[in-house]
Formats: sequence, C-alpha cells, structure tokens
Amino acid sequence: MSEKRINLGVIGLGCRGLGILNGIILSMYELGKVEILGVCDLYEDRVKDAYEKVKNKTGKTPVYTTDYREILAIKEIDAVLVMTAWESHIEIATAAMKAGKKVGMEVGGAYSIDDCFKLVKTYEETGIHCMMLENCCYGRKELLVLNMVKQGVFGDIVHCSGGYMHDLRDEIANGDVKRHYRQRNYFNRNCENYPTHELGPIAQVLNINRGNKMLYLTSVASCSKGLHEFIVEKKGTDHPHAKVNVAQGDIVTTIIKCAQGQTVVLTLDTTLPRSYSRGFTVRGTKGMYCEDGNYIHMDGESEWETVAAKVNSAEKYFEKYEHPLWEEYKKNPVGGHDGIDWLVYSAFVESVANNTTPPIDTYDTASWMCISTLSEESIACSGKPVNIPDFTNGKWILRTEEEDKSESIYSLSKIVKK
Amino acid sequence: MSEKRINLGVIGLGCRGLGILNGIILSMYELGKVEILGVCDLYEDRVKDAYEKVKNKTGKTPVYTTDYREILAIKEIDAVLVMTAWESHIEIATAAMKAGKKVGMEVGGAYSIDDCFKLVKTYEETGIHCMMLENCCYGRKELLVLNMVKQGVFGDIVHCSGGYMHDLRDEIANGDVKRHYRQRNYFNRNCENYPTHELGPIAQVLNINRGNKMLYLTSVASCSKGLHEFIVEKKGTDHPHAKVNVAQGDIVTTIIKCAQGQTVVLTLDTTLPRSYSRGFTVRGTKGMYCEDGNYIHMDGESEWETVAAKVNSAEKYFEKYEHPLWEEYKKNPVGGHDGIDWLVYSAFVESVANNTTPPIDTYDTASWMCISTLSEESIACSGKPVNIPDFTNGKWILRTEEEDKSESIYSLSKIVKK
Repeated sequence: MSEKRINLGVIGLGCRGLGILNGIILSMYELGKVEILGVCDLYEDRVKDAYEKVKNKTGKTPVYTTDYREILAIKEIDAVLVMTAWESHIEIATAAMKAGKKVGMEVGGAYSIDDCFKLVKTYEETGIHCMMLENCCYGRKELLVLNMVKQGVFGDIVHCSGGYMHDLRDEIANGDVKRHYRQRNYFNRNCENYPTHELGPIAQVLNINRGNKMLYLTSVASCSKGLHEFIVEKKGTDHPHAKVNVAQGDIVTTIIKCAQGQTVVLTLDTTLPRSYSRGFTVRGTKGMYCEDGNYIHMDGESEWETVAAKVNSAEKYFEKYEHPLWEEYKKNPVGGHDGIDWLVYSAFVESVANNTTPPIDTYDTASWMCISTLSEESIACSGKPVNIPDFTNGKWILRTEEEDKSESIYSLSKIVKK
Repeated sequence: MSEKRINLGVIGLGCRGLGILNGIILSMYELGKVEILGVCDLYEDRVKDAYEKVKNKTGKTPVYTTDYREILAIKEIDAVLVMTAWESHIEIATAAMKAGKKVGMEVGGAYSIDDCFKLVKTYEETGIHCMMLENCCYGRKELLVLNMVKQGVFGDIVHCSGGYMHDLRDEIANGDVKRHYRQRNYFNRNCENYPTHELGPIAQVLNINRGNKMLYLTSVASCSKGLHEFIVEKKGTDHPHAKVNVAQGDIVTTIIKCAQGQTVVLTLDTTLPRSYSRGFTVRGTKGMYCEDGNYIHMDGESEWETVAAKVNSAEKYFEKYEHPLWEEYKKNPVGGHDGIDWLVYSAFVESVANNTTPPIDTYDTASWMCISTLSEESIACSGKPVNIPDFTNGKWILRTEEEDKSESIYSLSKIVKK
C-alpha cells in the first residue's frame, strides 16, 4: 500500500457501515492509510455515534451529516465508501463519481438495468471507477481455488455454482426495528437479491469481463413460506407483518450462461433453516473444488468416496497453492470476517492512493449487480431467459488476463505464482 | 408378496438387464416368486448367455429370441421387464401393454412428448400399467427422508434438488465397444437425459401426480469439454471419436416449478471428474436433509456449523424414522445396489401377482420421462421455459395421499408410521 493517507467520506452507518468503520477504517487510520473527513447516515443517532467513534480514536472531528451531498461537497475527500441501503447505492455512487470522488460501494443488487448503465456511463464520462467491495473475492479458499484455476490445475473450467445461503429470518423479520432494508425488499420483491458473494469469486474464475462475459440467465423462485411462518411463530398471528404476503420466494435458483460456454448456478436461500454456506463450487475437466465439505476431487481419484469421506481434503492444497496475497496477509492478519473485509477495503484504498484501476471495476460492479433485476424479470415471466447486457460494449474481448499490467498484490485477474 | 409365481419375460440383456436377471430375478425364482418364460435381446450372444444362466439355475428352458414380439406372443407371460436401450423403452412397453402384459421398465428419459402420451393412452385403453423401475425411490435414505416429510418433521417442503452425478466418461467413451446406448446419445443430444434417479424420490416428497404436479421447467447446459478431452487422452487424436463434436453439455441444470409452488433443481453431471452422488436434498420450513455430507439440519440448530462439521448427522434419525419397509428389509437383505434393486423389483412383482396398481404408475413414468425431451427443447432455446404436460388430465388434484388405499408395504405415497 502507498504511504499517502487518503481522505475518506463514509456514507451509510447501519450495522455494516458502523462495523466497517470500527473494524477496518479506524484500524487503517492507525496504520496511517486513511483520514476520515466525513460521516453520513439518514439517521442522526447513527451519525453521532460514528462521529464520536472517529473523534475518540483520532482526536479529529469529521463532518457529520444526514445528507450525503454534504459529504460530496468536501473538496479534500478523495473517495467515499457507500454502505447505505441497496436502493440508494447507485444514486449515491454516481453522484460521488460526478463530484470527483472515487467510490467503494458495498455489495447489493440493482433495481433496473438503466441504473447499471448509469453507473457505467458515469465512469466513462468521469474516468472515476466504482469498485464493488465484494469481500468474498478475497476469501482464503476462493483465492486458493482461483490460483489453482489460473495455473490450470482443474483443467478447463466448465461450470461453477454458489449461493448466498444464510438463514436471515430473524434479521428480516426484525428489519423494521433494526431499520434494515432487507425486510421491505423481501416483502415486495421476488428476485436473486444478493448475487455477488458467490458471483464475485466465480466471475474471477471465469474471467468475466476479461475474455468472457455472461450472456443470459434464467431464474425461478420457489414459493414463499419460511419468513411468514417465522413471523407468525415469533410475533403472533395478530402482528401486522403476519398479514403480509411475502413476495420473496424462499429459494431462488438462477442459471447463467457465459459466452465461453460455461454455466453458473446461483442460489439465494435465506428464509429457511440451514447452515451458512456460500457453496462455492468450481468444476473443470481435471478436477473440482466444493466449499460444502471443503473438498477437492482430482481426476483419477476414486469416484466412490462420498463427500463425507472427502471432507476437508482441500486443506492439503494450501501448501502448494495458497494465494500470494494470503501468504502475505497471514503474517499480520487484521480485521474481521476472516480477513476478507480487510483485504477488499485495502484493495480499494490502495487503488485510490495509487490512482490505479481497482481490481473490481465499474464494469464488474454493474454486471454483477444487474443479476438482481434480470432475475426479477425472469422469475416474473416463469423463468424466461433474459439477456445480460454487455456493459463493456465489446471491450471484454480485449480485456484478457494477459492484458492485466497491474502491479497490485490485490489484483484478481492476473496469473500469480509463488 | 403373494405366494403365486408370476410368469416373466425379460427384454434387454445388456449390462443392466443381465445383472438384474442374475442378481434379482433368479433369486426371486429361488424364492418361488417368478418363472422366467422368455429372454430377449437384439444381440444373440447376450440372449444365449441369459438362456444358459436361466437354464442352469432353474433347469427350465425359456424361449430365447432377438425379437421382442416373440416374447409378447407367449400367452402365459404375465409381465415383461423392459431393460433395453432408452430409445426402445416406450415402443416395447406399449406393445407389451397392448399384448396384455404388465410392464416393469428400467429408467431412462423420453425422446418426445408424443411418446409419453402414447404410454399414458395405452394404459388408459388397456388398463395395464407401465411401472418405471426407479430403484432410487427405495433407497434407505430416500425413504427415511420421505417418512420424515410425511410426518411433517421438516415442516412445509418448498424446494428439493438432486442430480445424476456420476463420472461416466469411461462407459461413454467405450460405448461402441460395450454396445451401450449412452455414447450415441451423448454424441448427438444435449439434454437432461437421466432425470429419474433424483426426480423419482423427489416426486414422492412433493406428491407429484398426487395433489401436486410439475408445471414448467427451464434447462441450461454448459459447454461440452469433459468427454472429448477424455477420448483424446485415452484413444488419441487420431481415433474417429476424437473428431466427434460431442453434443451433450458436461453439466445440465434444470429448474422445475410445481403447481404447489415448490422448485426442484436437477443436475446431470456425468462427464467430468467427481465423486458419485445423487445429491438428494429436501428443504422445508422446519429442517432439511442433504445427501452430500449425509446431514440433517433442524430449525433451531446453529447455522454456524459447517457441512464438514455436520457430516453424517442424518444417521441418528434412523432410530426414530427408519421407513417400515426398510425395517422389514434389513432383517433379510437380498440383492445388490444397497437393496434398492431388490425392493423396486419386488414392488413390481407384487403388483403383478396381486393385480394392483404399482406404486410408480404410468402417469409417474410418463411425467418423469418427459423431463428429458422438454429439457432438450429448453436447452436448444437458451433456457426457454417449457410447459410440463398434465398427463393425468386433472386427476392429480384428486389423487391425493389420503386417497391411497394401498395395502402394499411398497407404497410410496401413503403415510406410514411405526
């Protein structure tokens, strides 16, 4: 990372925003990487809380406001972190880019294709990128597998799958109390609303927007029973939310077809009892990785060993294929979420400090986010296949991994070897 | 099972047919359940081999022929087993039904919707059923889960998934040598060609054709790389098959939507390195079962236990929820494939002997088989959703589990308790 401190504005201070401010950004301050010039949220109590935290840690007094435009008006700010509700991500991001601020944006899906194009056009007009802060791209296992893929260990990759498989019934049912945006989305929309935790790492494996692209998708949702049943049980039949006809299906399955022929299956699975998993799975002609069971099966191994017998067989590959970024990070681990937050925010801060293209750029951000609105359309039309726009207008053919001249240790597209 | 011996004709004596004759049917002969009056295959050597085996075991001389019509002409035959290549299943089955023979038919998919309707119409005209011999419906774990589902342990079921996930590259690549039908299918078709091993058990869980039906599906195939690469490696680039443009995608994902709102995801995954699995997974509002890892997660358990930690947690449920059929079968296990062949063939033989409706009837057979041809259409049209016909013409609404008056221990639709 560069030695220059960058000046940050932090927009969105809910559970995630405040957590990142506390766990990541203030640690970066201590390491001399960032200054926090402004904090913003729609809710005053959150803003004041964040203000106090910054003041206590740094001795400095950031601007605090409930209007993000006041943050964008601060001339000295180099970059903003957008950690607001999903619905406002692109609005705030594009306003920031137009104000000359680089954008690191938390994950979430888009509500319209138009919004995704707006993001891309704003980049093309301003030259300023919006990086989706997809922490899962920096997971230790995801990077192990990416490293193995790039070194050809799994052969040709033909299929990937993954999911956001996380029992969120409690969070969603109490979304009004917690002022969380998921509840209103689940009550009103039916779509793959959170594709990027699995799609981000898969996009790296498949070189999406770098020699490959997503062509079309089809998406089908199950009925919606889990959340309603949970609300009735926890809050009683007389609670107003017990009368809500929940729009969001319990399980949404999306199949994406890529220009180079691969398929990707995404699963949104957040309102039924289950273990947490992102189900990251990569299938090649010479082998496979599967997160559920944490196993690797290589060509030539017996197919009659069950998953139960193969559990954790991926571990032995770390010795040879640990990603160099993780080799480095393990020496001095900082931050939560198994390091992935630290790494993705570090990648962003580095790209701002060095004025380089972030490893996840605006084309990536737009093409990952668009899955939500496209799945909504497909589900509404009984699984109709819908075209996935080419936000690069053909540049994906030229943006190959060989073209990646990045010197950054955070690069996700170049081939790295120990 | 009834004490009356039934008279069987056996049509199709490839690897599967001969295996079943040897491992199941001749054991049933010894138990006084069946006589084998005729054996048939297109290949003379196979017919003679089967003839010798029957003669050696029984001391009797069955008719042997390469023309299945000669089998159907044997007046004394009550039922035929159809274990031929996929392409001839429905032709032979319907000819047999018209000849007054009950049909037990091995698994496989259909090539046209018209063929599926032909099967159903032949039943409706003759009153004679064609039972698909879907052994996986009788798997011990499948029946454990079915029993738990029917007793409401998993709550409302909203989603199921499964696959035929079996590295068949060697079998397919050598299909010409082995006179096996898979090779020509893989070279020429691209579809979910083998849906029933997972769909059969799932159909029981979801009461398909008994209060529920499959409404539509969408299907997308990955590119085809595994088989070609395997052929080139094993047979060299000069082998004629190394020049074949393999039609079948390595991984086919199919999403089925049901009338009662559930989704079903099927995966065909047979030409890449992997462990064998049928991936049977059942998701309800109160819990889930997953074959990969053989675990059960119930509502209230911590979601932060990984699959690796949950491995084999399903085992403890056998004590309370073992299906009564398996309780019985375990006392005196016979036959291979973990008993599932024995059980499904016993179910068929019992239904013939007692002249009762088989537990898997012609409507089930047709609706499971049609998935292959519908997926072919959907894949060819980039995942276009296609309607799944109602082969019952509305009778699925009346054929509920409460209606099941079957006394058979092999019944799959009635609720059973210890």
